[in-house]
Amino acid sequence: MADFTLNKLVIIGVGLIGGSFALALRKAGMVKFIVGVGRNKENMQRALSLGVIDTIAVDPVSAIQDADFVMLAMPVGQTTNILAKIAPHLESNTILTDVGSTKQDVIAVAQSYLTDNLGNFVPGHPIAGAELSGVSAAQADLFRDKHLILTPLAETTTHAINQVVKCWQGCGALISTMRAEEHDKVLAATSHLPHILAFTLMNYLRNCSEKKTDNLLRFAGSGFRDFTRIASSSPEMWRDICLANREALLTQIDAYKNALTSLQKDLANDDAQALEKTFTEAREIRANWLKDKD
Amino acid sequence: MADFTLNKLVIIGVGLIGGSFALALRKAGMVKFIVGVGRNKENMQRALSLGVIDTIAVDPVSAIQDADFVMLAMPVGQTTNILAKIAPHLESNTILTDVGSTKQDVIAVAQSYLTDNLGNFVPGHPIAGAELSGVSAAQADLFRDKHLILTPLAETTTHAINQVVKCWQGCGALISTMRAEEHDKVLAATSHLPHILAFTLMNYLRNCSEKKTDNLLRFAGSGFRDFTRIASSSPEMWRDICLANREALLTQIDAYKNALTSLQKDLANDDAQALEKTFTEAREIRANWLKDKD
Repeated sequence: MADFTLNKLVIIGVGLIGGSFALALRKAGMVKFIVGVGRNKENMQRALSLGVIDTIAVDPVSAIQDADFVMLAMPVGQTTNILAKIAPHLESNTILTDVGSTKQDVIAVAQSYLTDNLGNFVPGHPIAGAELSGVSAAQADLFRDKHLILTPLAETTTHAINQVVKCWQGCGALISTMRAEEHDKVLAATSHLPHILAFTLMNYLRNCSEKKTDNLLRFAGSGFRDFTRIASSSPEMWRDICLANREALLTQIDAYKNALTSLQKDLANDDAQALEKTFTEAREIRANWLKDKD
Repeated sequence: MADFTLNKLVIIGVGLIGGSFALALRKAGMVKFIVGVGRNKENMQRALSLGVIDTIAVDPVSAIQDADFVMLAMPVGQTTNILAKIAPHLESNTILTDVGSTKQDVIAVAQSYLTDNLGNFVPGHPIAGAELSGVSAAQADLFRDKHLILTPLAETTTHAINQVVKCWQGCGALISTMRAEEHDKVLAATSHLPHILAFTLMNYLRNCSEKKTDNLLRFAGSGFRDFTRIASSSPEMWRDICLANREALLTQIDAYKNALTSLQKDLANDDAQALEKTFTEAREIRANWLKDKD
Protein backbone atom coordinates (compact mmCIF):
# COMPACT_ATOMS: atom_id res chain seq x y z
CA MET A 1 0.00 0.00 0.00
CA ALA A 2 1.12 3.54 -0.73
CA ASP A 3 1.56 6.26 1.93
CA PHE A 4 -1.86 7.52 1.01
CA THR A 5 -4.70 5.01 1.18
CA LEU A 6 -8.44 5.38 0.75
CA ASN A 7 -10.45 2.93 2.79
CA LYS A 8 -13.65 3.29 0.82
CA LEU A 9 -13.89 4.87 -2.61
CA VAL A 10 -17.33 5.31 -4.20
CA ILE A 11 -17.56 5.76 -7.96
CA ILE A 12 -20.95 6.99 -9.13
CA GLY A 13 -21.08 6.13 -12.84
CA VAL A 14 -18.59 3.37 -13.67
CA GLY A 15 -17.84 4.13 -17.32
CA LEU A 16 -14.63 4.91 -19.16
CA ILE A 17 -13.59 7.71 -16.81
CA GLY A 18 -14.89 6.40 -13.48
CA GLY A 19 -13.66 2.89 -14.29
CA SER A 20 -10.19 4.08 -15.32
CA PHE A 21 -9.89 6.15 -12.13
CA ALA A 22 -10.74 3.04 -10.07
CA LEU A 23 -8.26 0.87 -11.96
CA ALA A 24 -5.49 3.47 -11.66
CA LEU A 25 -5.90 3.89 -7.89
CA ARG A 26 -6.06 0.14 -7.40
CA LYS A 27 -2.89 -0.33 -9.47
CA ALA A 28 -1.18 2.37 -7.40
CA GLY A 29 -2.16 0.52 -4.22
CA MET A 30 -4.05 3.58 -3.00
CA VAL A 31 -7.47 2.10 -2.28
CA LYS A 32 -8.79 -0.75 -0.16
CA PHE A 33 -12.41 -1.04 -1.22
CA ILE A 34 -14.29 0.33 -4.22
CA VAL A 35 -18.06 0.63 -4.46
CA GLY A 36 -19.57 1.22 -7.89
CA VAL A 37 -22.96 2.89 -8.30
CA GLY A 38 -24.81 2.61 -11.60
CA ARG A 39 -28.15 1.92 -13.25
CA ASN A 40 -26.98 -0.18 -16.20
CA LYS A 41 -26.92 -3.71 -14.74
CA GLU A 42 -24.89 -5.24 -17.54
CA ASN A 43 -22.22 -2.55 -17.30
CA MET A 44 -22.05 -2.86 -13.51
CA GLN A 45 -21.70 -6.67 -13.68
CA ARG A 46 -18.87 -6.19 -16.16
CA ALA A 47 -17.21 -3.68 -13.82
CA LEU A 48 -17.37 -6.28 -11.07
CA SER A 49 -16.10 -9.17 -13.18
CA LEU A 50 -13.27 -7.03 -14.57
CA GLY A 51 -12.20 -6.25 -11.00
CA VAL A 52 -12.77 -2.52 -11.47
CA ILE A 53 -15.03 -2.40 -8.41
CA ASP A 54 -15.46 -4.64 -5.35
CA THR A 55 -19.21 -4.34 -5.03
CA ILE A 56 -22.25 -2.95 -6.82
CA ALA A 57 -24.66 -0.48 -5.24
CA VAL A 58 -27.87 0.72 -6.83
CA ASP A 59 -28.73 3.36 -4.28
CA PRO A 60 -26.14 6.16 -4.04
CA VAL A 61 -27.33 7.18 -0.58
CA SER A 62 -26.51 3.87 1.08
CA ALA A 63 -23.34 3.56 -1.01
CA ILE A 64 -21.72 6.72 0.35
CA GLN A 65 -22.02 5.66 3.99
CA ASP A 66 -18.57 5.74 5.63
CA ALA A 67 -16.96 6.68 2.31
CA ASP A 68 -13.83 8.78 2.51
CA PHE A 69 -13.90 9.64 -1.21
CA VAL A 70 -16.81 9.96 -3.66
CA MET A 71 -16.28 10.52 -7.37
CA LEU A 72 -19.15 11.74 -9.54
CA ALA A 73 -18.50 10.21 -12.97
CA MET A 74 -22.02 9.76 -14.33
CA PRO A 75 -23.30 11.78 -17.33
CA VAL A 76 -23.32 15.50 -16.45
CA GLY A 77 -27.09 15.65 -17.02
CA GLN A 78 -27.58 13.57 -13.83
CA THR A 79 -25.58 15.89 -11.57
CA THR A 80 -28.55 17.68 -10.02
CA ASN A 81 -30.43 14.46 -9.42
CA ILE A 82 -27.49 12.70 -7.75
CA LEU A 83 -26.29 15.66 -5.70
CA ALA A 84 -29.81 16.35 -4.42
CA LYS A 85 -30.03 12.74 -3.27
CA ILE A 86 -26.64 12.35 -1.60
CA ALA A 87 -26.06 15.88 -0.21
CA PRO A 88 -28.02 15.41 3.05
CA HIS A 89 -26.22 12.12 3.74
CA LEU A 90 -22.59 13.06 3.04
CA GLU A 91 -20.44 12.71 6.13
CA SER A 92 -18.32 15.62 7.27
CA ASN A 93 -15.04 13.93 6.32
CA THR A 94 -16.10 12.61 2.91
CA ILE A 95 -14.23 14.22 0.01
CA LEU A 96 -16.25 14.77 -3.15
CA THR A 97 -14.99 15.35 -6.68
CA ASP A 98 -16.36 15.19 -10.22
CA VAL A 99 -15.07 14.84 -13.81
CA GLY A 100 -17.47 17.02 -15.82
CA SER A 101 -16.31 18.74 -19.02
CA THR A 102 -17.72 22.08 -17.83
CA LYS A 103 -17.25 23.42 -14.34
CA GLN A 104 -19.32 26.55 -13.66
CA ASP A 105 -22.58 24.62 -14.09
CA VAL A 106 -21.51 21.78 -11.77
CA ILE A 107 -20.39 24.33 -9.18
CA ALA A 108 -23.75 26.11 -9.37
CA VAL A 109 -25.53 22.83 -8.63
CA ALA A 110 -23.08 22.03 -5.83
CA GLN A 111 -23.64 25.45 -4.28
CA SER A 112 -27.39 24.77 -4.20
CA TYR A 113 -27.20 21.41 -2.51
CA LEU A 114 -23.92 21.02 -0.62
CA THR A 115 -24.61 23.54 2.11
CA ASP A 116 -22.47 22.09 4.92
CA ASN A 117 -20.12 20.06 2.76
CA LEU A 118 -19.17 22.61 0.11
CA GLY A 119 -15.63 22.78 1.52
CA ASN A 120 -15.15 19.08 0.75
CA PHE A 121 -16.06 19.45 -2.93
CA VAL A 122 -13.18 19.72 -5.43
CA PRO A 123 -14.45 20.13 -9.02
CA GLY A 124 -12.18 18.44 -11.57
CA HIS A 125 -11.85 17.68 -15.27
CA PRO A 126 -9.49 15.05 -16.69
CA ILE A 127 -8.60 15.80 -20.31
CA ALA A 128 -8.45 12.28 -21.66
CA GLY A 129 -9.87 10.66 -24.78
CA ALA A 130 -13.47 9.54 -24.49
CA GLU A 131 -14.53 8.17 -27.88
CA LEU A 132 -15.23 4.74 -26.46
CA SER A 133 -17.56 4.49 -23.54
CA GLY A 134 -18.53 2.00 -20.83
CA VAL A 135 -16.38 0.20 -18.31
CA SER A 136 -14.99 -2.23 -20.91
CA ALA A 137 -12.95 0.65 -22.33
CA ALA A 138 -11.51 1.59 -18.91
CA GLN A 139 -7.75 1.31 -18.46
CA ALA A 140 -5.43 2.01 -15.54
CA ASP A 141 -3.16 4.30 -17.59
CA LEU A 142 -5.86 6.41 -19.28
CA PHE A 143 -4.82 9.50 -17.32
CA ARG A 144 -1.05 8.96 -17.39
CA ASP A 145 0.68 12.15 -18.60
CA LYS A 146 -2.73 13.66 -19.40
CA HIS A 147 -3.88 17.01 -18.05
CA LEU A 148 -6.21 17.16 -15.08
CA ILE A 149 -7.69 20.53 -14.21
CA LEU A 150 -9.02 21.32 -10.74
CA THR A 151 -11.25 24.34 -10.19
CA PRO A 152 -11.64 24.63 -6.42
CA LEU A 153 -14.14 27.07 -4.93
CA ALA A 154 -13.23 29.76 -2.42
CA GLU A 155 -14.82 27.46 0.18
CA THR A 156 -12.87 24.33 -0.77
CA THR A 157 -10.48 23.31 2.03
CA THR A 158 -6.78 22.75 1.45
CA HIS A 159 -7.21 19.29 2.94
CA ALA A 160 -9.84 18.37 0.35
CA ILE A 161 -7.69 19.69 -2.52
CA ASN A 162 -4.68 17.73 -1.25
CA GLN A 163 -6.66 14.50 -1.07
CA VAL A 164 -7.91 14.88 -4.64
CA VAL A 165 -4.46 15.89 -5.89
CA LYS A 166 -2.95 12.75 -4.32
CA CYS A 167 -5.49 10.54 -6.09
CA TRP A 168 -4.85 12.09 -9.50
CA GLN A 169 -1.10 11.99 -8.92
CA GLY A 170 -1.58 8.28 -8.32
CA CYS A 171 -3.20 8.11 -11.77
CA GLY A 172 -0.13 9.79 -13.27
CA ALA A 173 -2.02 12.93 -14.34
CA LEU A 174 -0.49 16.38 -14.87
CA ILE A 175 -2.41 18.55 -12.44
CA SER A 176 -3.31 22.21 -13.01
CA THR A 177 -5.55 24.51 -11.02
CA MET A 178 -7.55 27.41 -12.40
CA ARG A 179 -10.77 29.31 -11.81
CA ALA A 180 -13.89 27.56 -13.12
CA GLU A 181 -14.66 30.51 -15.39
CA GLU A 182 -11.18 30.33 -16.91
CA HIS A 183 -11.50 26.56 -17.34
CA ASP A 184 -14.77 26.92 -19.21
CA LYS A 185 -13.26 29.57 -21.50
CA VAL A 186 -10.15 27.51 -22.23
CA LEU A 187 -12.18 24.40 -22.99
CA ALA A 188 -14.64 26.38 -25.10
CA ALA A 189 -11.71 27.38 -27.32
CA THR A 190 -9.69 24.18 -27.51
CA SER A 191 -12.36 21.51 -27.25
CA HIS A 192 -15.96 22.74 -27.55
CA LEU A 193 -15.31 25.02 -30.54
CA PRO A 194 -13.49 22.32 -32.59
CA HIS A 195 -16.31 19.86 -31.87
CA ILE A 196 -18.88 22.40 -33.04
CA LEU A 197 -16.83 23.06 -36.20
CA ALA A 198 -16.61 19.36 -37.01
CA PHE A 199 -20.28 18.61 -36.29
CA THR A 200 -21.28 21.63 -38.36
CA LEU A 201 -19.10 20.63 -41.31
CA MET A 202 -20.61 17.16 -41.49
CA ASN A 203 -24.15 18.56 -41.38
CA TYR A 204 -23.33 21.32 -43.82
CA LEU A 205 -21.99 18.82 -46.37
CA ARG A 206 -25.01 16.60 -45.89
CA ASN A 207 -27.26 19.51 -46.77
CA CYS A 208 -25.11 20.40 -49.80
CA SER A 209 -25.24 16.82 -51.02
CA GLU A 210 -29.00 16.55 -50.68
CA LYS A 211 -29.50 19.66 -52.78
CA LYS A 212 -27.08 18.62 -55.48
CA THR A 213 -28.17 14.96 -55.54
CA ASP A 214 -24.57 13.87 -56.19
CA ASN A 215 -22.62 12.81 -53.16
CA LEU A 216 -19.89 15.27 -52.28
CA LEU A 217 -18.50 13.02 -49.60
CA ARG A 218 -17.56 10.36 -52.11
CA PHE A 219 -14.38 12.32 -52.86
CA ALA A 220 -13.42 13.18 -49.30
CA GLY A 221 -10.00 11.83 -48.34
CA SER A 222 -7.95 10.97 -45.26
CA GLY A 223 -7.45 14.59 -44.18
CA PHE A 224 -11.22 14.93 -44.03
CA ARG A 225 -11.50 11.73 -41.99
CA ASP A 226 -9.16 13.02 -39.27
CA PHE A 227 -10.70 16.50 -39.30
CA THR A 228 -14.17 15.09 -38.67
CA ARG A 229 -13.27 12.31 -36.23
CA ILE A 230 -14.63 14.31 -33.29
CA ALA A 231 -17.98 14.63 -35.11
CA SER A 232 -18.48 10.96 -34.16
CA SER A 233 -18.62 11.88 -30.47
CA SER A 234 -21.72 11.35 -28.35
CA PRO A 235 -24.54 13.75 -29.40
CA GLU A 236 -26.12 13.68 -25.93
CA MET A 237 -22.86 14.47 -24.18
CA TRP A 238 -22.09 17.34 -26.55
CA ARG A 239 -25.59 18.72 -26.32
CA ASP A 240 -25.11 18.94 -22.53
CA ILE A 241 -21.61 20.41 -22.78
CA CYS A 242 -22.74 23.09 -25.25
CA LEU A 243 -25.71 24.10 -23.12
CA ALA A 244 -23.62 24.09 -19.93
CA ASN A 245 -20.97 26.33 -21.50
CA ARG A 246 -23.31 28.31 -23.72
CA GLU A 247 -22.05 31.87 -23.21
CA ALA A 248 -18.35 31.08 -23.58
CA LEU A 249 -19.05 28.93 -26.64
CA LEU A 250 -21.24 31.56 -28.34
CA THR A 251 -18.41 34.07 -27.85
CA GLN A 252 -15.87 31.63 -29.32
CA ILE A 253 -18.01 30.91 -32.38
CA ASP A 254 -18.48 34.64 -33.00
CA ALA A 255 -14.75 35.28 -32.77
CA TYR A 256 -13.97 32.31 -35.01
CA LYS A 257 -16.45 33.53 -37.64
CA ASN A 258 -14.63 36.87 -37.56
CA ALA A 259 -11.33 35.08 -38.15
CA LEU A 260 -12.91 33.36 -41.17
CA THR A 261 -14.19 36.69 -42.45
CA SER A 262 -10.71 38.16 -42.16
CA LEU A 263 -9.28 35.29 -44.21
CA GLN A 264 -12.05 35.73 -46.76
CA LYS A 265 -10.98 39.35 -47.21
CA ASP A 266 -7.40 38.31 -47.94
CA LEU A 267 -8.67 35.73 -50.39
CA ALA A 268 -11.09 38.15 -52.10
CA ASN A 269 -8.18 40.62 -52.45
CA ASP A 270 -5.94 37.95 -53.99
CA ASP A 271 -3.50 38.70 -51.18
CA ALA A 272 -1.12 35.77 -51.68
CA GLN A 273 1.34 37.07 -49.10
CA ALA A 274 -1.26 37.40 -46.35
CA LEU A 275 -2.64 33.91 -47.05
CA GLU A 276 0.80 32.34 -46.99
CA LYS A 277 1.59 34.16 -43.73
CA THR A 278 -1.62 32.88 -42.13
CA PHE A 279 -0.98 29.28 -43.22
CA THR A 280 2.70 29.41 -42.25
CA GLU A 281 1.92 30.73 -38.78
CA ALA A 282 -0.80 28.12 -38.35
CA ARG A 283 1.63 25.36 -39.24
CA GLU A 284 4.30 26.77 -36.93
CA ILE A 285 2.04 27.13 -33.93
CA ARG A 286 0.89 23.54 -34.44
CA ALA A 287 4.48 22.26 -34.77
CA ASN A 288 5.44 24.07 -31.54
CA TRP A 289 2.41 22.67 -29.78
CA LEU A 290 3.26 19.11 -30.84
CA LYS A 291 6.87 19.63 -29.71
CA ASP A 292 5.73 20.88 -26.29
CA LYS A 293 3.47 17.84 -25.89
CA ASP A 294 6.31 15.36 -26.46
CA MET B 1 4.70 -6.18 -70.24
CA ALA B 2 1.01 -5.40 -70.06
CA ASP B 3 -1.28 -5.03 -73.09
CA PHE B 4 -0.80 -1.31 -72.83
CA THR B 5 2.77 -0.04 -72.81
CA LEU B 6 4.22 3.45 -72.85
CA ASN B 7 7.58 3.67 -74.60
CA LYS B 8 8.59 6.98 -73.10
CA LEU B 9 6.95 8.56 -70.06
CA VAL B 10 8.06 12.03 -68.96
CA ILE B 11 7.35 13.13 -65.39
CA ILE B 12 7.79 16.86 -64.85
CA GLY B 13 8.17 17.27 -61.10
CA VAL B 14 9.24 13.97 -59.49
CA GLY B 15 7.83 14.37 -55.98
CA LEU B 16 5.37 12.28 -54.00
CA ILE B 17 2.70 12.24 -56.71
CA GLY B 18 4.86 12.13 -59.85
CA GLY B 19 7.20 9.59 -58.28
CA SER B 20 4.37 7.35 -57.10
CA PHE B 21 2.79 7.44 -60.58
CA ALA B 22 6.13 6.36 -62.10
CA LEU B 23 6.58 3.55 -59.55
CA ALA B 24 3.02 2.31 -60.06
CA LEU B 25 3.29 2.15 -63.87
CA ARG B 26 6.66 0.45 -63.63
CA LYS B 27 5.29 -2.12 -61.19
CA ALA B 28 2.36 -2.73 -63.55
CA GLY B 29 4.81 -3.32 -66.42
CA MET B 30 3.21 -0.51 -68.39
CA VAL B 31 6.24 1.65 -69.19
CA LYS B 32 9.60 1.05 -70.85
CA PHE B 33 11.50 4.26 -70.13
CA ILE B 34 10.88 7.09 -67.67
CA VAL B 35 12.43 10.55 -67.89
CA GLY B 36 12.27 12.77 -64.83
CA VAL B 37 12.42 16.54 -65.10
CA GLY B 38 13.19 18.64 -62.02
CA ARG B 39 15.20 21.50 -60.62
CA ASN B 40 16.11 20.09 -57.22
CA LYS B 41 19.29 18.11 -57.96
CA GLU B 42 19.31 16.17 -54.72
CA ASN B 43 15.72 15.07 -55.18
CA MET B 44 16.34 14.06 -58.81
CA GLN B 45 19.44 12.04 -57.88
CA ARG B 46 17.37 10.27 -55.25
CA ALA B 47 14.66 9.55 -57.84
CA LEU B 48 17.31 7.98 -60.04
CA SER B 49 18.95 5.93 -57.30
CA LEU B 50 15.55 4.74 -56.03
CA GLY B 51 14.77 3.49 -59.55
CA VAL B 52 11.77 5.79 -59.87
CA ILE B 53 13.12 7.24 -63.14
CA ASP B 54 15.62 6.02 -65.74
CA THR B 55 17.24 9.35 -66.51
CA ILE B 56 17.27 12.96 -65.36
CA ALA B 57 16.52 15.88 -67.66
CA VAL B 58 16.84 19.52 -66.65
CA ASP B 59 15.28 21.02 -69.77
CA PRO B 60 11.62 20.03 -70.22
CA VAL B 61 11.72 20.90 -73.94
CA SER B 62 14.38 18.33 -74.83
CA ALA B 63 12.87 15.84 -72.39
CA ILE B 64 9.51 15.64 -74.15
CA GLN B 65 10.97 14.74 -77.54
CA ASP B 66 9.40 11.47 -78.76
CA ALA B 67 7.45 11.14 -75.52
CA ASP B 68 4.13 9.35 -75.79
CA PHE B 69 3.00 10.50 -72.33
CA VAL B 70 3.84 13.62 -70.32
CA MET B 71 2.67 14.13 -66.75
CA LEU B 72 2.76 17.58 -65.17
CA ALA B 73 3.37 16.93 -61.45
CA MET B 74 5.31 20.03 -60.42
CA PRO B 75 3.83 22.64 -58.02
CA VAL B 76 0.73 24.22 -59.60
CA GLY B 77 2.35 27.68 -59.49
CA GLN B 78 4.76 26.54 -62.25
CA THR B 79 2.05 25.45 -64.69
CA THR B 80 2.11 28.58 -66.86
CA ASN B 81 5.90 28.61 -67.03
CA ILE B 82 6.19 24.92 -68.00
CA LEU B 83 3.28 24.87 -70.44
CA ALA B 84 4.53 28.02 -72.20
CA LYS B 85 7.91 26.31 -72.68
CA ILE B 86 6.78 22.88 -73.84
CA ALA B 87 3.61 23.74 -75.81
CA PRO B 88 5.34 24.64 -79.11
CA HIS B 89 7.39 21.42 -78.97
CA LEU B 90 4.73 18.85 -78.07
CA GLU B 91 4.36 16.24 -80.79
CA SER B 92 0.94 15.53 -82.24
CA ASN B 93 0.69 12.08 -80.63
CA THR B 94 1.97 13.04 -77.16
CA ILE B 95 -0.68 12.67 -74.44
CA LEU B 96 -0.53 15.28 -71.67
CA THR B 97 -2.06 15.11 -68.21
CA ASP B 98 -1.65 16.88 -64.86
CA VAL B 99 -2.39 16.27 -61.17
CA GLY B 100 -3.34 19.73 -59.88
CA SER B 101 -5.76 20.13 -56.96
CA THR B 102 -7.82 22.69 -58.89
CA LYS B 103 -8.84 22.23 -62.50
CA GLN B 104 -10.44 25.35 -63.98
CA ASP B 105 -7.24 27.37 -63.56
CA VAL B 106 -5.03 24.70 -65.17
CA ILE B 107 -7.50 24.42 -68.05
CA ALA B 108 -7.43 28.20 -68.57
CA VAL B 109 -3.63 28.09 -68.87
CA ALA B 110 -3.81 25.08 -71.20
CA GLN B 111 -6.32 26.86 -73.43
CA SER B 112 -3.90 29.78 -73.76
CA TYR B 113 -0.88 27.74 -74.75
CA LEU B 114 -1.94 24.36 -76.17
CA THR B 115 -3.50 25.62 -79.38
CA ASP B 116 -2.94 22.57 -81.63
CA ASN B 117 -2.57 20.01 -78.85
CA LEU B 118 -5.52 20.84 -76.66
CA GLY B 119 -7.24 17.59 -77.70
CA ASN B 120 -4.37 15.60 -76.18
CA PHE B 121 -4.68 17.23 -72.76
CA VAL B 122 -6.57 15.33 -70.07
CA PRO B 123 -6.73 17.29 -66.79
CA GLY B 124 -6.65 15.01 -63.73
CA HIS B 125 -6.58 15.07 -59.93
CA PRO B 126 -5.63 12.07 -57.79
CA ILE B 127 -7.12 12.32 -54.29
CA ALA B 128 -4.32 10.80 -52.29
CA GLY B 129 -2.57 11.86 -49.10
CA ALA B 130 0.19 14.40 -49.55
CA GLU B 131 1.49 15.33 -46.09
CA LEU B 132 4.96 14.08 -46.90
CA SER B 133 6.65 15.45 -49.96
CA GLY B 134 9.59 14.62 -52.21
CA VAL B 135 10.37 11.45 -54.11
CA SER B 136 11.50 9.61 -50.95
CA ALA B 137 7.85 9.45 -49.92
CA ALA B 138 6.74 8.00 -53.27
CA GLN B 139 5.20 4.53 -53.26
CA ALA B 140 3.78 2.28 -55.99
CA ASP B 141 0.48 1.77 -54.19
CA LEU B 142 -0.23 5.39 -53.22
CA PHE B 143 -3.19 5.56 -55.62
CA ARG B 144 -4.57 2.05 -55.05
CA ASP B 145 -8.33 2.27 -54.28
CA LYS B 146 -8.05 6.08 -54.15
CA HIS B 147 -10.23 8.37 -56.23
CA LEU B 148 -8.87 9.91 -59.40
CA ILE B 149 -10.97 12.60 -61.06
CA LEU B 150 -10.61 13.46 -64.74
CA THR B 151 -12.08 16.71 -66.08
CA PRO B 152 -11.70 16.45 -69.86
CA LEU B 153 -12.42 19.48 -72.06
CA ALA B 154 -14.91 19.47 -74.92
CA GLU B 155 -11.87 19.30 -77.20
CA THR B 156 -10.20 16.34 -75.45
CA THR B 157 -10.16 13.27 -77.73
CA THR B 158 -11.54 9.92 -76.67
CA HIS B 159 -8.16 8.41 -77.51
CA ALA B 160 -6.36 10.74 -75.08
CA ILE B 161 -8.89 10.03 -72.33
CA ASN B 162 -8.52 6.27 -72.86
CA GLN B 163 -4.74 6.45 -72.61
CA VAL B 164 -4.87 8.38 -69.34
CA VAL B 165 -7.58 6.08 -67.94
CA LYS B 166 -5.41 3.04 -68.71
CA CYS B 167 -2.46 4.55 -66.83
CA TRP B 168 -4.50 5.35 -63.74
CA GLN B 169 -6.18 1.95 -63.89
CA GLY B 170 -2.66 0.53 -63.84
CA CYS B 171 -2.13 2.49 -60.59
CA GLY B 172 -5.26 0.89 -59.12
CA ALA B 173 -7.18 4.19 -58.88
CA LEU B 174 -10.98 4.55 -58.85
CA ILE B 175 -11.63 6.79 -61.83
CA SER B 176 -14.42 9.36 -62.06
CA THR B 177 -15.10 11.98 -64.70
CA MET B 178 -16.79 15.34 -64.11
CA ARG B 179 -16.79 18.89 -65.39
CA ALA B 180 -13.90 21.03 -64.12
CA GLU B 181 -16.32 23.50 -62.54
CA GLU B 182 -18.03 20.68 -60.64
CA HIS B 183 -14.67 19.29 -59.54
CA ASP B 184 -13.59 22.62 -58.12
CA LYS B 185 -16.88 22.99 -56.24
CA VAL B 186 -16.71 19.48 -54.79
CA LEU B 187 -13.11 19.92 -53.69
CA ALA B 188 -13.85 23.38 -52.26
CA ALA B 189 -16.41 21.72 -49.97
CA THR B 190 -14.64 18.51 -48.96
CA SER B 191 -10.99 19.53 -49.00
CA HIS B 192 -10.32 23.26 -49.33
CA LEU B 193 -12.94 24.34 -46.77
CA PRO B 194 -11.72 21.89 -44.06
CA HIS B 195 -8.13 23.04 -44.62
CA ILE B 196 -9.20 26.67 -44.23
CA LEU B 197 -11.12 25.80 -41.05
CA ALA B 198 -8.12 24.02 -39.54
CA PHE B 199 -5.59 26.72 -40.51
CA THR B 200 -7.95 29.39 -39.16
CA LEU B 201 -8.49 27.59 -35.86
CA MET B 202 -4.75 27.32 -35.22
CA ASN B 203 -4.21 31.01 -35.96
CA TYR B 204 -7.27 32.04 -34.01
CA LEU B 205 -6.04 30.20 -30.89
CA ARG B 206 -2.59 31.69 -31.28
CA ASN B 207 -4.12 35.15 -31.21
CA CYS B 208 -6.28 34.28 -28.20
CA SER B 209 -3.27 32.97 -26.32
CA GLU B 210 -1.16 36.03 -27.01
CA LYS B 211 -3.82 38.29 -25.60
CA LYS B 212 -4.38 36.22 -22.50
CA THR B 213 -0.69 35.43 -21.89
CA ASP B 214 -1.59 31.96 -20.67
CA ASN B 215 -1.29 29.21 -23.22
CA LEU B 216 -4.66 27.84 -24.25
CA LEU B 217 -3.11 25.08 -26.29
CA ARG B 218 -1.53 23.49 -23.23
CA PHE B 219 -4.87 21.81 -22.51
CA ALA B 220 -5.71 20.70 -26.03
CA GLY B 221 -6.11 16.94 -26.36
CA SER B 222 -6.03 14.19 -28.97
CA GLY B 223 -9.29 15.25 -30.66
CA PHE B 224 -7.71 18.63 -31.26
CA ARG B 225 -4.58 16.99 -32.69
CA ASP B 226 -6.55 15.06 -35.32
CA PHE B 227 -8.81 18.02 -36.11
CA THR B 228 -5.82 20.24 -36.86
CA ARG B 229 -3.59 17.70 -38.62
CA ILE B 230 -4.32 19.26 -42.03
CA ALA B 231 -3.15 22.64 -40.66
CA SER B 232 0.36 21.20 -40.96
CA SER B 233 0.04 21.06 -44.77
CA SER B 234 2.27 23.10 -47.07
CA PRO B 235 1.46 26.85 -46.80
CA GLU B 236 2.67 27.54 -50.36
CA MET B 237 0.58 24.76 -51.85
CA TRP B 238 -2.53 25.87 -49.99
CA ARG B 239 -1.99 29.52 -50.85
CA ASP B 240 -2.01 28.49 -54.52
CA ILE B 241 -5.02 26.19 -54.18
CA CYS B 242 -7.06 28.88 -52.39
CA LEU B 243 -6.24 31.52 -54.98
CA ALA B 244 -6.90 29.13 -57.86
CA ASN B 245 -10.30 28.16 -56.46
CA ARG B 246 -11.12 31.52 -54.93
CA GLU B 247 -14.75 31.99 -55.94
CA ALA B 248 -15.92 28.48 -55.03
CA LEU B 249 -14.07 28.67 -51.73
CA LEU B 250 -15.45 32.10 -50.79
CA THR B 251 -18.95 30.73 -51.43
CA GLN B 252 -18.25 27.68 -49.26
CA ILE B 253 -16.90 29.77 -46.38
CA ASP B 254 -19.98 32.02 -46.52
CA ALA B 255 -22.33 29.06 -46.45
CA TYR B 256 -20.39 27.43 -43.63
CA LYS B 257 -20.53 30.62 -41.55
CA ASN B 258 -24.30 30.60 -42.07
CA ALA B 259 -24.42 27.00 -40.79
CA LEU B 260 -22.50 28.14 -37.69
CA THR B 261 -24.90 31.04 -37.19
CA SER B 262 -27.84 28.66 -37.38
CA LEU B 263 -26.29 26.47 -34.69
CA GLN B 264 -25.58 29.55 -32.58
CA LYS B 265 -29.29 30.39 -32.70
CA ASP B 266 -30.23 26.95 -31.40
CA LEU B 267 -27.64 27.30 -28.66
CA ALA B 268 -28.74 30.83 -27.71
CA ASN B 269 -32.33 29.55 -27.50
CA ASP B 270 -31.29 26.63 -25.26
CA ASP B 271 -32.85 24.37 -27.87
CA ALA B 272 -31.52 21.05 -26.58
CA GLN B 273 -33.57 19.04 -29.06
CA ALA B 274 -32.28 20.94 -32.10
CA LEU B 275 -28.67 20.63 -30.92
CA GLU B 276 -28.98 16.92 -30.31
CA LYS B 277 -30.59 16.47 -33.75
CA THR B 278 -27.73 18.35 -35.42
CA PHE B 279 -25.05 16.33 -33.61
CA THR B 280 -26.86 13.02 -34.18
CA GLU B 281 -27.24 13.67 -37.90
CA ALA B 282 -23.60 14.71 -38.15
CA ARG B 283 -22.51 11.50 -36.48
CA GLU B 284 -24.79 9.41 -38.69
CA ILE B 285 -23.65 10.96 -41.96
CA ARG B 286 -20.04 10.37 -40.92
CA ALA B 287 -20.74 6.75 -39.94
CA ASN B 288 -22.41 6.16 -43.32
CA TRP B 289 -19.53 7.78 -45.13
CA LEU B 290 -16.98 5.58 -43.33
CA LYS B 291 -19.09 2.50 -44.13
CA ASP B 292 -19.23 3.42 -47.83
CA LYS B 293 -15.48 3.87 -47.91
CA ASP B 294 -14.78 0.37 -46.56
